[in-house]
Amino acid sequence: MIYLKKYVYLFNEADATMRNLLGGKGANLAEMTKIGLPVPFGFTVSTEACTKYYEDGKKIDDAIVKEIFTAVTELEKEANKTFGDVNNPLLVSVRSGARASMPGMMDTILNLGLNDEVVKGLAKLTANPRFAYDSYRRFIMMFADVVMEIGKENFDKIFDERKKQRKVSDDADLTAEDMIYIADAFLARYQELKGEPFPQDPKEQLIEAVSAVFRSWDNPRANTYRRLHHIPYSWGTAVNVQTMVFGNMGDDCGTGVAFSRNPATGENELFGEYLFNAQGEDVVAGIRTPKPISELKKEAPELYQEFHEISDKLEHHYKEMQDLEFTIERNKLYILQTRSGKRTAHAAIKIAIDMVNEGLIDEKEAVLRVDPASLDQMLHPAFDEEALKKAKVVGEGLAASPGAAYGKVVFTAEKAQELHAKEPNSPIILVRVETSPEDIEGMVIASGILTARGGMTSHAAVVARGMGTCCVAGADHMSINEEEGYFEIRGNRFKEGEFISLNGSTGKVYGEKIETVEAEVSGDFATLMAWADKYRVLEVRTNADTPKDAQVARDFGAQGIGLVRTEHMFFEATRIKAVREMILAKTQEDREKALAKILPMQKEDFIGIYEVMDGLPVTIRYLDPPLHEFLPHEDKDIEALAKDMGVTFQELKQTVDELHETNPMLGHRGVRLSVTYPEIAEMQTRAVIEAAIEVSKKGIKVVPEIMIPLVGEVKELKYIKDFVVKVADEIIKEANVDLKYLVGTMIEIPRATLLADEIAKEAEFFSFGTNDLTQMAFGFSRDDAAKFLSYYYDKKIYEADPFAHIDQAGVGKLMEFGVKLGKQTRPDISLGICGEHGGDPQSVEFCHDIGLDYVSCSPFRVPIARLAAAQANIKKPRK
Amino acid sequence: MIYLKKYVYLFNEADATMRNLLGGKGANLAEMTKIGLPVPFGFTVSTEACTKYYEDGKKIDDAIVKEIFTAVTELEKEANKTFGDVNNPLLVSVRSGARASMPGMMDTILNLGLNDEVVKGLAKLTANPRFAYDSYRRFIMMFADVVMEIGKENFDKIFDERKKQRKVSDDADLTAEDMIYIADAFLARYQELKGEPFPQDPKEQLIEAVSAVFRSWDNPRANTYRRLHHIPYSWGTAVNVQTMVFGNMGDDCGTGVAFSRNPATGENELFGEYLFNAQGEDVVAGIRTPKPISELKKEAPELYQEFHEISDKLEHHYKEMQDLEFTIERNKLYILQTRSGKRTAHAAIKIAIDMVNEGLIDEKEAVLRVDPASLDQMLHPAFDEEALKKAKVVGEGLAASPGAAYGKVVFTAEKAQELHAKEPNSPIILVRVETSPEDIEGMVIASGILTARGGMTSHAAVVARGMGTCCVAGADHMSINEEEGYFEIRGNRFKEGEFISLNGSTGKVYGEKIETVEAEVSGDFATLMAWADKYRVLEVRTNADTPKDAQVARDFGAQGIGLVRTEHMFFEATRIKAVREMILAKTQEDREKALAKILPMQKEDFIGIYEVMDGLPVTIRYLDPPLHEFLPHEDKDIEALAKDMGVTFQELKQTVDELHETNPMLGHRGVRLSVTYPEIAEMQTRAVIEAAIEVSKKGIKVVPEIMIPLVGEVKELKYIKDFVVKVADEIIKEANVDLKYLVGTMIEIPRATLLADEIAKEAEFFSFGTNDLTQMAFGFSRDDAAKFLSYYYDKKIYEADPFAHIDQAGVGKLMEFGVKLGKQTRPDISLGICGEHGGDPQSVEFCHDIGLDYVSCSPFRVPIARLAAAQANIKKPRK
Repeated sequence: MIYLKKYVYLFNEADATMRNLLGGKGANLAEMTKIGLPVPFGFTVSTEACTKYYEDGKKIDDAIVKEIFTAVTELEKEANKTFGDVNNPLLVSVRSGARASMPGMMDTILNLGLNDEVVKGLAKLTANPRFAYDSYRRFIMMFADVVMEIGKENFDKIFDERKKQRKVSDDADLTAEDMIYIADAFLARYQELKGEPFPQDPKEQLIEAVSAVFRSWDNPRANTYRRLHHIPYSWGTAVNVQTMVFGNMGDDCGTGVAFSRNPATGENELFGEYLFNAQGEDVVAGIRTPKPISELKKEAPELYQEFHEISDKLEHHYKEMQDLEFTIERNKLYILQTRSGKRTAHAAIKIAIDMVNEGLIDEKEAVLRVDPASLDQMLHPAFDEEALKKAKVVGEGLAASPGAAYGKVVFTAEKAQELHAKEPNSPIILVRVETSPEDIEGMVIASGILTARGGMTSHAAVVARGMGTCCVAGADHMSINEEEGYFEIRGNRFKEGEFISLNGSTGKVYGEKIETVEAEVSGDFATLMAWADKYRVLEVRTNADTPKDAQVARDFGAQGIGLVRTEHMFFEATRIKAVREMILAKTQEDREKALAKILPMQKEDFIGIYEVMDGLPVTIRYLDPPLHEFLPHEDKDIEALAKDMGVTFQELKQTVDELHETNPMLGHRGVRLSVTYPEIAEMQTRAVIEAAIEVSKKGIKVVPEIMIPLVGEVKELKYIKDFVVKVADEIIKEANVDLKYLVGTMIEIPRATLLADEIAKEAEFFSFGTNDLTQMAFGFSRDDAAKFLSYYYDKKIYEADPFAHIDQAGVGKLMEFGVKLGKQTRPDISLGICGEHGGDPQSVEFCHDIGLDYVSCSPFRVPIARLAAAQANIKKPRK
Repeated sequence: MIYLKKYVYLFNEADATMRNLLGGKGANLAEMTKIGLPVPFGFTVSTEACTKYYEDGKKIDDAIVKEIFTAVTELEKEANKTFGDVNNPLLVSVRSGARASMPGMMDTILNLGLNDEVVKGLAKLTANPRFAYDSYRRFIMMFADVVMEIGKENFDKIFDERKKQRKVSDDADLTAEDMIYIADAFLARYQELKGEPFPQDPKEQLIEAVSAVFRSWDNPRANTYRRLHHIPYSWGTAVNVQTMVFGNMGDDCGTGVAFSRNPATGENELFGEYLFNAQGEDVVAGIRTPKPISELKKEAPELYQEFHEISDKLEHHYKEMQDLEFTIERNKLYILQTRSGKRTAHAAIKIAIDMVNEGLIDEKEAVLRVDPASLDQMLHPAFDEEALKKAKVVGEGLAASPGAAYGKVVFTAEKAQELHAKEPNSPIILVRVETSPEDIEGMVIASGILTARGGMTSHAAVVARGMGTCCVAGADHMSINEEEGYFEIRGNRFKEGEFISLNGSTGKVYGEKIETVEAEVSGDFATLMAWADKYRVLEVRTNADTPKDAQVARDFGAQGIGLVRTEHMFFEATRIKAVREMILAKTQEDREKALAKILPMQKEDFIGIYEVMDGLPVTIRYLDPPLHEFLPHEDKDIEALAKDMGVTFQELKQTVDELHETNPMLGHRGVRLSVTYPEIAEMQTRAVIEAAIEVSKKGIKVVPEIMIPLVGEVKELKYIKDFVVKVADEIIKEANVDLKYLVGTMIEIPRATLLADEIAKEAEFFSFGTNDLTQMAFGFSRDDAAKFLSYYYDKKIYEADPFAHIDQAGVGKLMEFGVKLGKQTRPDISLGICGEHGGDPQSVEFCHDIGLDYVSCSPFRVPIARLAAAQANIKKPRK
């Protein structure tokens, strides 16, 4: 082929629309160049080059190498400097930039182009040897770390020792000689560990660095982040190569990051931090504690004003809150990056509503601006007011990510995982000096994060906000002794495993467990939810088994109950005995006797739920799990139960053994229980209907929806439905009331989706049970798959957990059959979902798209589903 | 509605084409009436009336009752007799007749219309009181049994006591007085048991009888028979009401059944039995031993000649071997029924080929004439010649159903089921005085059946031939003492649980276990199979894990191996140790060490199979079952193994526990094993390829087809395929040979069928694994479903076992997706099936229809599949 594909774009050759090709960072750098902002010149190696790199077996094509150096020539012209020139060297930064922002996940190299000779030239040229060698030592360390995988700790040690030796505590107090010493020591250390000298050829440095960025796309941290944020592996990353400007050239230099609005509260004010005489990573890495951006107004009012104007310009340009990086080189301001700023859900809501009020965006756009998943943090518990009054503050830090949490102290991500595996219900507080991408797995499971170092833009703070996890960062007077397993804060010592509490909205740390209470929907949140409700068509119901859950869900805006799991009620200590009698009954008569004991209890449950849900639909699923789940399995427990029930150990043991199944998930459960013991369905019908009649006498409106689980064949449903209808109609007739009820089914067996036209002849509604449907469509159970799914993620066979997000390609197809065939038979059939996917925003969107009438999810996910449903309908309005 | 549907058809209002409406019996009676044969006049109540009966809640609609009596009036006119008239009574028979023949399953009532007064009139009219009361006592008993469910045994006892009292052994020696006595005693017994007198109104008798026939459609025997023979419940049965003719009016009367050709051997000769002075059931019930039809030639040459001509006429008319029932009333011959005769597979083949030679039918029709499933009996073992020489014949009976069998003696169907449950691999011989429909479940699992009474048309003989089970009927000098648990034959006593052997082709009984050998394909069988091969397009491969199995299959005409289960080789005592080492390995290195030990053994296996299959494809499936299947589970076995392997009990126990899965069927198996341990796939590839290279050096042609099981996602397949191809190509390159191989996958996960277009990008062939596909589509495992499926059959929710016959509505739909999508991506993709359905004729037909290239089944089912494939293509030729 003669046509050569273009892989490298100068900043003045592109714009913001080219995000997919150039990554977010590259596209925005081009856009800023276009609108005339002070951006150091540079170019972007495209995401297609990354894809090609992997296709070619991790090799950068020669043609691309050539393109890169052609672009470098353009940079040289613009800067009037030459790459590798000892007398007037061009230095560059190399940064990754994927289509979606992946903070902290990818690696950056600054000051590239330096070597033993060039550094001397730079020192001479700038007459600032300290700056030159500071730059060099930084470059050596970053290059070693990012390109050669020689960890920073190898160099930090040298640096810290020199400081100690020189008895200085601030990096700024190190002299040029110190920097020369350090750079030399770094070079020696590099050679020692790598077995060869530090590469001196700037061209080699550049290509190695570009390769390293590509490589970092596939590192475990990146893979984990992508899985958590649903970013496809296939996207790849771009690489930005940019002329260096220096914040570390002296006191008229500096670097900083800032948001155009407050990312924690949403206030319309510049929010950020900066350091003089520093390079970018000093601010974000949390090594030096930076100053708030408001200080800059005093220290350099003109620069502040200029920056403020740029920030405003960018916000109006993008109609979005911006996250900016800047560098000041000899009192000149440069913008190194702009992107949509990450923010707390609280801030996201406030900003969206403010921007509507400011006329920047409309309501629909505002609804789209808030990530439904992030609402989770709004719905998290806050401290109980009374308990809080008595609690003692033991320390304080930055309010880095809002919410309240208590938990057991652990000091490493590994310990967090261990504890979580052992006690999955124990909340955990991860306590670290500072966090790094390696800690991500531990951060995911922690209820709260406390760090000793770092600011509002530190790794811990950014990541915690993204995940909606409570975080207090850079806590004062705090030290950690990981080896001996304790930390001290303001002189209070806490050991691993002890309880502490954090308030991420105030930054306060408490030395005890403080009970938490649920969040409320009000203020801006309520406004946003009202807009969401205005634009959605998908109803949101809840999965609730108790009046309490039902009330929480109703308060969160649930429009009915999509799933009452009747068996959850069976496990209560006061009831389990009657349930066991029912299971162990040898005759139908005995079984009916036991069921008669359960009936009044079950009826009470339904009465409670109906009362809370007055006027809204309540869908009740009949007994679903295998019966052996209700029986003890250990010999001593069987013995105790046998004694209690007046049967012999042998007899009970035999029954338990008989009920054992090879594959309980594929066994005697769901509707199959009702087929073998219709009297169970009869009892449950009696409870459902009698309870409904009872509450309706009090004026409460209820239309029970009776849901038969695990149906795979219409005759199976009809068989049970006949019993249900007979019993229900008899009771209704006898009570002489006018009560409507529906009988429907779960669609959770693959065969049911394929024969939904048949099943719809009997079913008045379908509710997709996507947990089971996923298990059977994939042929693996959730429990058992845990063993091998991690391999599947590592190997990128699956990039998302199909139990968390509907597998649209497979399971989704089955759902679409179910919808199409069901409507074919019964055009007005009610269609819902009650699997756990019902509360997952991307699954909610899918449910909207395929035409379901409602989703049902856990109470705390109701607002999330409402927002996700609104977004789905704004993106693809239902006709 | 004004339009009245017609539910009752006189014999002269219909013909053979109306089988679905009138049942086989009714349609044939009409047809015979049409072609002028001597058929007593009658009418048929249609199958739609049966369906309506059930729809109306088991009630015969008034309009239908009216139609019935209108038809009775026609019978009265024709016979010049009146129903219920004391002086000149019309009597009728009432018989069931479904669309498909269901011998012994439905119930018959003769002599209906008799009551205390009519019987007197009949005696007077015929001047034959013995006949009149013989007819009455028969009617009372049949009515009681069929309509009122008062078992025959209640009456047999009275009858036998009278014979004993009167010291006669032959029924014929009972006098008119005896019959009057017996009829009176029957009436008294009826009243005693029923609590009301025997119904005297003939109209009531008739409607009750018709209802009883409808009811009998739903009895457990009928349900079992239908399930075994795939007859849908929805068909319903018709009822035939026919003017009685009497074979029991004296010595110039008689009754018999006969086949137009020999149903055991296929010889073109009349074959049957008759009795003088008897009614129909006397011949088939096995109570009196009838005479062979050839005797009739001597006893009544003119009648014999007339019958022979009718038989020939019917055979030419239907172009099929006929099974006729006839009655002689005062030397006049009447035909009561004709239908296609049931026959052994041996006879079916001979008749089909003879009819082609006679020019009656063509080859295709001949191929369609043999039930593929029946071939099973041709393929059953015969006795080993040498062992037979030494064996002692202890008794002899009728060669009622061919084949040879040995097994443990049991005396009841229940005992057979018990023994089968306890020792599923122990062959069983069911020994009974005579069998009845109640014994059907026991007969199904027996390897052979031996009866003391009954002829070639007895229940035992007919049913055994239908099932292809070896049977010796009416054995001489045989008595059974069920209570004390033994039987005697010619003075030899055998106890329950002892071994005997039967030769159903010779009628000989042996008092010991005689080893059996496999059948051969030759003679007529070979001719038929050659015709089948001529007309089929679907290839037939086999599932074989050893060279021996492969050889058997090749001898039966297998065109390759569709499934080698490599893990079966792992269980051998000499190998299991290395396999366990592999499983227990803590590191990849240890695992590879163990795999290196397995490699040469696995290679040897493949060499043996390749040699046998020279020139034919061999499909090898990689390791499939969960690893814990290879480990012991009992503590003592774990202890022994631990000692053997030099690890501690605790260590091994922990590994076993770690490998435990909640739902092994949905767990870590199939391709998932290879994803976590690619070194297993590497070893297996090495064995497959090295073995192929080795045999190809000897001139043996082989194209190994490597099959990856349990794939649900194309990336999963690609991941393993990359390993396979790399290893294989390296070995081939190193050996410097030209070896082709394919890599394909099983399609057995529902998701795989839905994403078959993606998967076909990597898979060169698909093989449908319908066992797993059925489990996952239905959401129940074969093992666990046994517990509740019987309820499903009872309740007619499922009428066939989806593991025996492909569920076309659900699983079949998934297969169709797989076929369509697979071909979309790769039009020449090879498509097969290797689930157990591959040997089931109705599933084979389905596989043909959806466009598969081959089916693969167990060696013994290969001829069955070949024939089924031919029939499928004759019925629906593939374009």
